Amino acid sequence: MTSTNAWPDLRGIAYGGDYTPEQWPRETWDEDVALMREAGVNLVSVGIFSWALLETSEGVFDFTWLDELIDLLHANGISVDLGTPTASPPAWFFADHPEARVITRDGTVMGFGSRGMASHSSPEYRAAIVRIASTLAERYGQHPAVVLWHVHNEYGVPVGEDYSAQSVHAWREWLRERYGSLDDLNRAWGTAFWGQHYGDWEHVGAPAAAPSVVNPAQRLDFARFTDHQLRECFIAERDAIRAHAGQPITTNFMANQSWTTDMWAWAREVDIVSDDHYLWAADPEGEIGLAIAADLSRSVGGGKPWILMEHSTSAVNWQPRNVAKRPGEMARNSLSHLGRGADGILFFQWRASRSGAEKFHSAMVPHAGTGARVWREVVELGDTLGRLTEVKGSRVVADVAILWDFESFWAQDLEWRPSEDVGHAERVRAFYERCWRDGITVDFALPGQDLSAYRLVIAPAQYLLTTADAANLTRYVAHGGTLVVSFFSAIVDENDTVHAGGYGAPLREALGVAVEEFLPLRAGDTSTVVWNGEGADELSADVWQEHLVVDDAEVRGSFLDGPGAGMPAITRHRHGAGTGWYISTRLDAAGLAIVMKEVYADAGVAPSGLLDGVEVITRRGADADFTVAINHRAETISLPITGHNLVTGTDAPGMLDLAGGEVAVIRTSRVAEGGGR
Amino acid sequence: MTSTNAWPDLRGIAYGGDYTPEQWPRETWDEDVALMREAGVNLVSVGIFSWALLETSEGVFDFTWLDELIDLLHANGISVDLGTPTASPPAWFFADHPEARVITRDGTVMGFGSRGMASHSSPEYRAAIVRIASTLAERYGQHPAVVLWHVHNEYGVPVGEDYSAQSVHAWREWLRERYGSLDDLNRAWGTAFWGQHYGDWEHVGAPAAAPSVVNPAQRLDFARFTDHQLRECFIAERDAIRAHAGQPITTNFMANQSWTTDMWAWAREVDIVSDDHYLWAADPEGEIGLAIAADLSRSVGGGKPWILMEHSTSAVNWQPRNVAKRPGEMARNSLSHLGRGADGILFFQWRASRSGAEKFHSAMVPHAGTGARVWREVVELGDTLGRLTEVKGSRVVADVAILWDFESFWAQDLEWRPSEDVGHAERVRAFYERCWRDGITVDFALPGQDLSAYRLVIAPAQYLLTTADAANLTRYVAHGGTLVVSFFSAIVDENDTVHAGGYGAPLREALGVAVEEFLPLRAGDTSTVVWNGEGADELSADVWQEHLVVDDAEVRGSFLDGPGAGMPAITRHRHGAGTGWYISTRLDAAGLAIVMKEVYADAGVAPSGLLDGVEVITRRGADADFTVAINHRAETISLPITGHNLVTGTDAPGMLDLAGGEVAVIRTSRVAEGGGR
Amino acid sequence: MTSTNAWPDLRGIAYGGDYTPEQWPRETWDEDVALMREAGVNLVSVGIFSWALLETSEGVFDFTWLDELIDLLHANGISVDLGTPTASPPAWFFADHPEARVITRDGTVMGFGSRGMASHSSPEYRAAIVRIASTLAERYGQHPAVVLWHVHNEYGVPVGEDYSAQSVHAWREWLRERYGSLDDLNRAWGTAFWGQHYGDWEHVGAPAAAPSVVNPAQRLDFARFTDHQLRECFIAERDAIRAHAGQPITTNFMANQSWTTDMWAWAREVDIVSDDHYLWAADPEGEIGLAIAADLSRSVGGGKPWILMEHSTSAVNWQPRNVAKRPGEMARNSLSHLGRGADGILFFQWRASRSGAEKFHSAMVPHAGTGARVWREVVELGDTLGRLTEVKGSRVVADVAILWDFESFWAQDLEWRPSEDVGHAERVRAFYERCWRDGITVDFALPGQDLSAYRLVIAPAQYLLTTADAANLTRYVAHGGTLVVSFFSAIVDENDTVHAGGYGAPLREALGVAVEEFLPLRAGDTSTVVWNGEGADELSADVWQEHLVVDDAEVRGSFLDGPGAGMPAITRHRHGAGTGWYISTRLDAAGLAIVMKEVYADAGVAPSGLLDGVEVITRRGADADFTVAINHRAETISLPITGHNLVTGTDAPGMLDLAGGEVAVIRTSRVAEGGGR
Repeated sequence: MTSTNAWPDLRGIAYGGDYTPEQWPRETWDEDVALMREAGVNLVSVGIFSWALLETSEGVFDFTWLDELIDLLHANGISVDLGTPTASPPAWFFADHPEARVITRDGTVMGFGSRGMASHSSPEYRAAIVRIASTLAERYGQHPAVVLWHVHNEYGVPVGEDYSAQSVHAWREWLRERYGSLDDLNRAWGTAFWGQHYGDWEHVGAPAAAPSVVNPAQRLDFARFTDHQLRECFIAERDAIRAHAGQPITTNFMANQSWTTDMWAWAREVDIVSDDHYLWAADPEGEIGLAIAADLSRSVGGGKPWILMEHSTSAVNWQPRNVAKRPGEMARNSLSHLGRGADGILFFQWRASRSGAEKFHSAMVPHAGTGARVWREVVELGDTLGRLTEVKGSRVVADVAILWDFESFWAQDLEWRPSEDVGHAERVRAFYERCWRDGITVDFALPGQDLSAYRLVIAPAQYLLTTADAANLTRYVAHGGTLVVSFFSAIVDENDTVHAGGYGAPLREALGVAVEEFLPLRAGDTSTVVWNGEGADELSADVWQEHLVVDDAEVRGSFLDGPGAGMPAITRHRHGAGTGWYISTRLDAAGLAIVMKEVYADAGVAPSGLLDGVEVITRRGADADFTVAINHRAETISLPITGHNLVTGTDAPGMLDLAGGEVAVIRTSRVAEGGGR
Repeated sequence: MTSTNAWPDLRGIAYGGDYTPEQWPRETWDEDVALMREAGVNLVSVGIFSWALLETSEGVFDFTWLDELIDLLHANGISVDLGTPTASPPAWFFADHPEARVITRDGTVMGFGSRGMASHSSPEYRAAIVRIASTLAERYGQHPAVVLWHVHNEYGVPVGEDYSAQSVHAWREWLRERYGSLDDLNRAWGTAFWGQHYGDWEHVGAPAAAPSVVNPAQRLDFARFTDHQLRECFIAERDAIRAHAGQPITTNFMANQSWTTDMWAWAREVDIVSDDHYLWAADPEGEIGLAIAADLSRSVGGGKPWILMEHSTSAVNWQPRNVAKRPGEMARNSLSHLGRGADGILFFQWRASRSGAEKFHSAMVPHAGTGARVWREVVELGDTLGRLTEVKGSRVVADVAILWDFESFWAQDLEWRPSEDVGHAERVRAFYERCWRDGITVDFALPGQDLSAYRLVIAPAQYLLTTADAANLTRYVAHGGTLVVSFFSAIVDENDTVHAGGYGAPLREALGVAVEEFLPLRAGDTSTVVWNGEGADELSADVWQEHLVVDDAEVRGSFLDGPGAGMPAITRHRHGAGTGWYISTRLDAAGLAIVMKEVYADAGVAPSGLLDGVEVITRRGADADFTVAINHRAETISLPITGHNLVTGTDAPGMLDLAGGEVAVIRTSRVAEGGGR
Repeated sequence: MTSTNAWPDLRGIAYGGDYTPEQWPRETWDEDVALMREAGVNLVSVGIFSWALLETSEGVFDFTWLDELIDLLHANGISVDLGTPTASPPAWFFADHPEARVITRDGTVMGFGSRGMASHSSPEYRAAIVRIASTLAERYGQHPAVVLWHVHNEYGVPVGEDYSAQSVHAWREWLRERYGSLDDLNRAWGTAFWGQHYGDWEHVGAPAAAPSVVNPAQRLDFARFTDHQLRECFIAERDAIRAHAGQPITTNFMANQSWTTDMWAWAREVDIVSDDHYLWAADPEGEIGLAIAADLSRSVGGGKPWILMEHSTSAVNWQPRNVAKRPGEMARNSLSHLGRGADGILFFQWRASRSGAEKFHSAMVPHAGTGARVWREVVELGDTLGRLTEVKGSRVVADVAILWDFESFWAQDLEWRPSEDVGHAERVRAFYERCWRDGITVDFALPGQDLSAYRLVIAPAQYLLTTADAANLTRYVAHGGTLVVSFFSAIVDENDTVHAGGYGAPLREALGVAVEEFLPLRAGDTSTVVWNGEGADELSADVWQEHLVVDDAEVRGSFLDGPGAGMPAITRHRHGAGTGWYISTRLDAAGLAIVMKEVYADAGVAPSGLLDGVEVITRRGADADFTVAINHRAETISLPITGHNLVTGTDAPGMLDLAGGEVAVIRTSRVAEGGGR
């Protein structure tokens, strides 16, 4: 049996959260379902950490409580996202199979008592997850309450790389498969360096603790292997479920929060993309990181609606300082996800746990109970979402793509790079943030995919860029696209081997420049770029300069000081019908804004012109657009738009006044009211 | 045979230190005893690290040198505090019993070559300590020089938690004893969270390294278990000694420096409380931390005189920067301990070691010899103490109690709390320091004990507060007491489970408020409290705010800004005959002073009115009070007091002039001279 | 057969680098040798990481490629420095001998995949290195291209201390050899402290992880043992080579970058000292650290010419921020090494690696190819060196010695010292930097060696100073020398035991002072020294003060504030025909300059009077002096000198104008042109 539905059988936007009734007495369940109805909850995720209560010892199952729970939910019209509990095997599993425990790089054995899966490569673990997934699917595959399967939880967190003997064994098999011959492995890893030549497959180990830095190509492959093994675990469960159940199957990602898994590859395996997202409390503009996560979740799924599987009603518990959300912030966060393509808004979790490691994590029902602000906002949000049913299924369309390649991330963040001040995530955030403030909606994209639909492609962190992908970007420019490339890009190929021809060589044609030498700055040093364009005479930068060799690009900015003083810093190059920009330093936010203004002009992309902090995203429906507007500012703003505000049920006749902190969803009929994006 | 004396058979205040003649040639011993007599030393601690020299292999003893030493001391009128050497088992013990070695959370085996006991749960170690303690007691139990037994050294330092197999085995036994059934353990630990349900006792492990945070209730119990096992080790030795010897038995605590052992429980097991204290050199007002330690040592022993078993004549060697004591500082420190109830003032150590890890630790006889300032002050202090014999046995009486519960400390300092800026020790220090500067003597107290003798009870850090203890505090208020509660109190019960009813619920009746949500601040953020009382219009605070729900308390201060802007910050509530104050933020020192002034007024407690840095404590004797006055300031101060200064032998007729840095002990006859506290 | 040549059979200054053709296709080899000829390269180091390609499994050799390579080099007139590849054993070695893997202090096993030798004490490793070294020597010992043997690579990095069972076994043997009896070991280690007495050799372990600080004398001995074992490995290879080959044998040190090996002891075992040096990029004056390394390399070899075996053409790859060298900097660095005695200037490496951990390390042929600045400078440097042939063999002569004792370094940097702000390397740098800025050339020296040739001896960090060495210094003063001693010197003897008589006692006669007590300052605290001499009334200092007891020294400066307020800070003492200075605090650079001016006057040493940043060193040849002048400043400077500039081929008639960043080497005939130092 295969999946017959691309979306859970639900009316309207999905709304709810993780529900863990096993932590509560039976009488609380009845209160729970009553409150769920009050809040408009239509979907809850259950069973995610329930393995020990469902399979009490190997092969011995007890579904009494789960049967009762699902029937209760069903009777109250609440659908179930049924989890497989494989992210947290029971105590008996680890006791029976101590060799399945994960081992860290330095040899520490990861014990029981916390959470986390066993070794992704343990045959015993693999057998156990198929057994529990099959058994659940067999039992609940036909249950009318179950509309979605939730395999595992957050693959890659907190268990990713595993250095156990079982993992090393699987690693060798994976390498044989990948390389076929040891000669090819030796070549790919460059084992001639430091005398690492292998003459026997059995001599190849995991990149564990060693006296100095381990071969980076080996480490990169180990990241690929880890991703592959985790994905195999998912596929094993998915296929076990599919044999018995027809509902769609997902697993919750952690976009922009964990990088262990290659979301592009995983998105091909799930029926529906779902994602967990938590604000980073130390960042007073956490909504930008949220938008990255949401856009990435949408992008990996090819633009299809996705489900926000977890976020928080207020504070989390695992950050250094767990800042509470301000009044209205939960709604703003939720609507931003929705605006960026989410057709489900769920929380971790329904009711705050009184015990355990996450007891200080906020919930839909907080410790303070239903008298609390959080609960009132939960009910209000349920009400709002109930009025947005028609948004469901509509799509976001973007003119701009930012490249995002997990392999490049993995490679760049290994040891011994030219400067520890250069980071993959930092570069992505800088360019994304620029677009966010300029009111420009972006997709994320792979460097090797068809990019022709985009007016502008930004490559903020393409340290690893294959020759083929570089050729794709070059073609994109030749055919009229505008490409912006940030420094430290196109440095290595898929084996972390420096490209023949030197740094940046594969993009030399598109950009008209090559990098002769990196000139990283000392800690805290800044430099000035003399700018030849509009907006400023000088731009501020730090961290990095380069000795750039200009073939035939136009020099738009040059270094005034620092090791690159007098050398070109920012270039623009006409190639075929398009334009390739290169920015060889880390501009500050003001400087990047100035440069991007010219880039936008080249690309024909128009900033929204709205005040900073007014977030507007449009979803395109069958015959209407839905514009989600979020006012992150304190004061009322006016938005030039005509349509119907689904949140308030009132019309916006050409202008929408949106109070500080408020949200709106404006339906604009594309026929009657014109417009579009 | 049981202890027949509550105090060592000594004239006057005990004075001396750790004596390690095994580090020196025989001729130095004669010089040592001569110098001891010169300094007025009447008690030395010997044998604490001598196991390897007394039991040269299992069961083979050699007491030759110790016999000679004790006889020599006795002949010179110096009494002996005889140590059992079990804090540092010999090399042969670890070689014979490698499985008795301690293992850390991450699996590192703790080897020999440093110091530190074996596994507290090793049967072989338990047998060995009983053997050496019995043998020593049998040999020296009747020796007239031996007036005190000093079991072990600083339990819990440097060895506390142990993750070895022997420890895990004992841990399961301890859990069986505590919980009786696995159902009760699963309930107490909340194992339904993250799927940690146990179905077999043998599956329960120590809270060792795991992929994520380990169950906090499990970790809290492991702290209890560790304390229990260490205490069992003490009791085993104590009982072995008691079988042969009648002298009182002690073990040296580390109040306010180590928190591994629950001093309240331990104090019930010793005949005399003794304590080690070292200034924290980075703190220019180390005397405040000292006062905390001294008051805690007195309090756990129920107010009885105690012994300062170790402090330093000058610098220690194990801090980042080991600041030397200034001239007179050793005397000021010693008199503060004495004023706070110590009837013995001892040092680590008599003569500075030339070798080993602590060779840079100061001593009574420094490396520079008897020409040095330190030696002169040691002789002078001996002389001073000789004139204070009549102080012996007098008691400190306090009107104010600060709550101190080791279990709350253990629980609060686990992982994943709302803000890493909130600390148990910091809160205690802040309130204690306020009292210290205000010249108010405090006791420490358990939240569940009879508090009726106190006018004011301060709860600075009652994160873990059982329902019963909260009821005790509520009764205390109802019966007329004044209670001050600081934020993040009454959050969890004894299982680290959030109280039913939400944060602070058990104190809601006493305080008239409840906490709806924590509002921790971002790093470095500060906020302002609008104050409705005297002394200031606004108070400064940081770290923390709360969404407070006021039932019927009086709002004394409100947040002006920050996430809680406009909400109540400081409340005062009349409950029964008493008053409950709640302070929901971290006020700075000036702000706390202003609030506490009102609190003192409610409680009828009067600050001393003395200048900051003038420390005055009174010990109440049979028919006289002894007022210890310490001038930490540089200039001479005048103290209104009438009596006889035992230090100088002169009279203070209504006013005592005390030069900068000097100390005085004024005897005031309660009958003739009036006064008292 | 023994070494018959003290220097490789080469014309002129050696020039070249590490050559790793095994990383490149055969056709690149031909390009390489052509480029080497273009650059004037006459020596390349080969085979250093080639074990796996030469011995493909135990005892199976394949020299095909190496034969071809060496013949190719020879045919092109390029000589070979032939490495033994023992710094990086092959994968098969670790697979065959897992017990030979190195283990860290905390028990982590060091695996394969990086670089690093096996356990220095593994019999299997010892057998393997002798086998490969013998086989190489047998095959290439008579090859005319091979002019030098390069044993191993950078002993002590990244593998030094080893806590494996094989190491512990060897450690016990080493201790038996050193101490003969356990009584002597117990005495030397002071095991009476903390009850560490040993009754059986088998009970003595390595100083591995333990509950608290491990016995410092044990740790110091373990450092000695580690140095000894590594040196034994070297000697085993050296002797294996000598049995077949007559060329000189070296191994590359890491002066002033790694302290694991005692370069003085190693220099006695090599035919030629060679050294690797890399600038510390965070230091904008990295040339000072370079000069220390170069002077140390010369000094340990007794002043004989040495080889700079590795430095970099530009950035390295292993620092936090790998700053590129500026134009001309590579030449300035190279000439500074040459000026300080190097007759060979080599690089790591010839051609930048495309793969592996060091792909971002600069090279003679950079990734950007022969069009790049770096390559142009490499060719230019080859040209310059070609004109300096006559400098070869000349010697540096210094009037000033700075003491440098690895054992003192090892001891001082152990745990639990009085202040973590006091560091051995920092003190050496401070005094060396003073001399460097004053244009005074220094040697490094051991405290126990004949110092009579020096006018001034500086002891910046003699924490460990044996009684015999102190007596040598005292004699040096008595016989007319000037000695400057910095604080925290002469504290302990060879067993890390405090000297009898107290801190500094062994130097009391020479200095006329003794240290009663250390007075380290709190973090960030500074103090003022009232100065009785010329140049300033007050000097600034931090970190440290002392309670100094002055016997009969002249007090030149006193503390104005801080714990030592009013006490002497800087003293000067006439002893016999000489003078002993003592500086008891950390003066800032300006303060040290003022004090050293008086010291120079006492010693009759004259600063150069040149501007700061103008580096001038003289090598004395048979009948001419060669003055190397390096202008680190940006502007042209004028240097009063008469002679012939070998770099430009022009004459300097009394005055040399040297442009910013430029270098010169002036030949001054001592007979005709007078002068000399």
